[in-house]
Amino acid sequence: MSLGEFELIDRFFKRPVQRAVLGVGDDCALLQPTPGMQLAVSTDLLVEGRHFLSTVDPARLGHKALAVNLSDLAACGAKPLGFTLSLALPRADERFLAPFAQGLLALADRHQIELVGGDTTAGPLTIGITVFGEVPPGQALLRSGARVGDDIWVSGWPGEARLALEVFRGTLALGAEDFAQARLAMECPEPRIALGLALRGLATAAIDVSDGLLGDLGHVLRRSGVGAELALARMPRRALLAGQLAAVQRIAWLTGGDDYELLFCAPEGADAALQAIATQTGVPLHRIGQVLPRGAGLRVLDEQGSPIDLTQLAGFDHFKS
Amino acid sequence: MSLGEFELIDRFFKRPVQRAVLGVGDDCALLQPTPGMQLAVSTDLLVEGRHFLSTVDPARLGHKALAVNLSDLAACGAKPLGFTLSLALPRADERFLAPFAQGLLALADRHQIELVGGDTTAGPLTIGITVFGEVPPGQALLRSGARVGDDIWVSGWPGEARLALEVFRGTLALGAEDFAQARLAMECPEPRIALGLALRGLATAAIDVSDGLLGDLGHVLRRSGVGAELALARMPRRALLAGQLAAVQRIAWLTGGDDYELLFCAPEGADAALQAIATQTGVPLHRIGQVLPRGAGLRVLDEQGSPIDLTQLAGFDHFKS
Repeated sequence: MSLGEFELIDRFFKRPVQRAVLGVGDDCALLQPTPGMQLAVSTDLLVEGRHFLSTVDPARLGHKALAVNLSDLAACGAKPLGFTLSLALPRADERFLAPFAQGLLALADRHQIELVGGDTTAGPLTIGITVFGEVPPGQALLRSGARVGDDIWVSGWPGEARLALEVFRGTLALGAEDFAQARLAMECPEPRIALGLALRGLATAAIDVSDGLLGDLGHVLRRSGVGAELALARMPRRALLAGQLAAVQRIAWLTGGDDYELLFCAPEGADAALQAIATQTGVPLHRIGQVLPRGAGLRVLDEQGSPIDLTQLAGFDHFKS
Repeated sequence: MSLGEFELIDRFFKRPVQRAVLGVGDDCALLQPTPGMQLAVSTDLLVEGRHFLSTVDPARLGHKALAVNLSDLAACGAKPLGFTLSLALPRADERFLAPFAQGLLALADRHQIELVGGDTTAGPLTIGITVFGEVPPGQALLRSGARVGDDIWVSGWPGEARLALEVFRGTLALGAEDFAQARLAMECPEPRIALGLALRGLATAAIDVSDGLLGDLGHVLRRSGVGAELALARMPRRALLAGQLAAVQRIAWLTGGDDYELLFCAPEGADAALQAIATQTGVPLHRIGQVLPRGAGLRVLDEQGSPIDLTQLAGFDHFKS
């Protein structure tokens, strides 16, 4: 890339900082965390052709690149502070950079966080983001806190993003409106920051659904040393998912990733408190199962209450594709 | 990549955390910064074929990937706290991963910091690191604080790394021992953390020399709104550089990057304090010039005291190559 191309990139991403002490342009960015708070950090690397298609709308790509990182903060109950962006670009193309920056910074603005540092280089299209947030000591939501008897909850309408993936794979046909809705779920997930903050002190464990609901629940179970039972009959579904064949619903719901909803455990009897949080945050919450002793493993009951054979389901694993 | 390959990667990088509250394996890592301190953050993305050769020793690559990030903390006078690593790998090759992790973690151990989070994916070899450090409010070394009359100092023996680059480019021949020394400077730079900490409250401005001494000094001058004069006669050189043609020395010293030495400004008369710091840290420090009013621009005097024509020098810019 030429110097002019780097100036072009600066033009889209460089803005005066409002909250950080010092932003882009020195050796380091400087932030002033609230004294005594713990710092929560997460990082994600997105590679073209693996995490996103070359045909994706750059504005949505900018949104999603930040959203998947903010989602990790949400799953910890952390309040976002700022983020860094590393970009490898084959070329500095204004038609890509302008909407990409717009989508990225619009989401940052909505969460009142700033891009505090970055690095840009020529290379195969790769997006690296590291986010920082803060959380009071001992209040972070971890994967390891689930207790036998807890209820298992999920936010939003998980599974819809998976329908879009299946359309791109050519294994599913959807009408134009349904496809647009599924694609929005896949390309524009909303990080559940407000929900994560509200769950502090209430949820015993949490994770965001990125690789598939069953797989992500499995991480919680392993770390917590417990088992679980989910009921397909409790699966939240809107018209989009309800309109699909039962087998498609099951795959989408249990193995669909990329929705970035929060999956969490809470003590039995927290329904009223959680429904109040759902109203306050505008995010629907559904109770979908229960934490069992470790020996129970992970089982899923079908609509008739019979255990289904999970070996038939292959988790969505973008590393295997 | 297969699940087995990811387990292989985990094996090399996953270690129990000692200082962080929570390390790799949850949605976020948790760190407990010292209450009231500012957080310094820097990020770098290294792409194969651009920032490093495919033939580089993986242990040295691991060292350098972290070193260039720690160098940014050093240039700010920040104390390292931890780092995240994002890796895109064409394949999980143990012969690469084992020495890469060893080189990376050995440097981390020496600076008592931990790998607190990361992301691994299949893709063209790309290394993204984000480092965090802390610094008392108002004490960070910035690029913007240089004042007219300040002396300009540099650490170590800048220019040696550039000789190795020229050998790889085929424009310079060195004997085996000289090449080994130059290559060590290029591949194993030492981040000047202890020096950066010692310069707090003394240096008025600082930057690390990554893109070339003149170019990096230019950043300081622009941000500080000043000019400067450097004297080639004061250029620090050991036998390796002193043994080259005068023209090669000049190019290596003025435009050589990749040494990751600190270039800093300090008030006139700080020589004794700085020589004490050099002794304490074991890093040689040399006074190489003076800060002048902005109108003077940037000028370099040759060994006879005559200004040299800087338009003849092309800064080392890996984005243009």
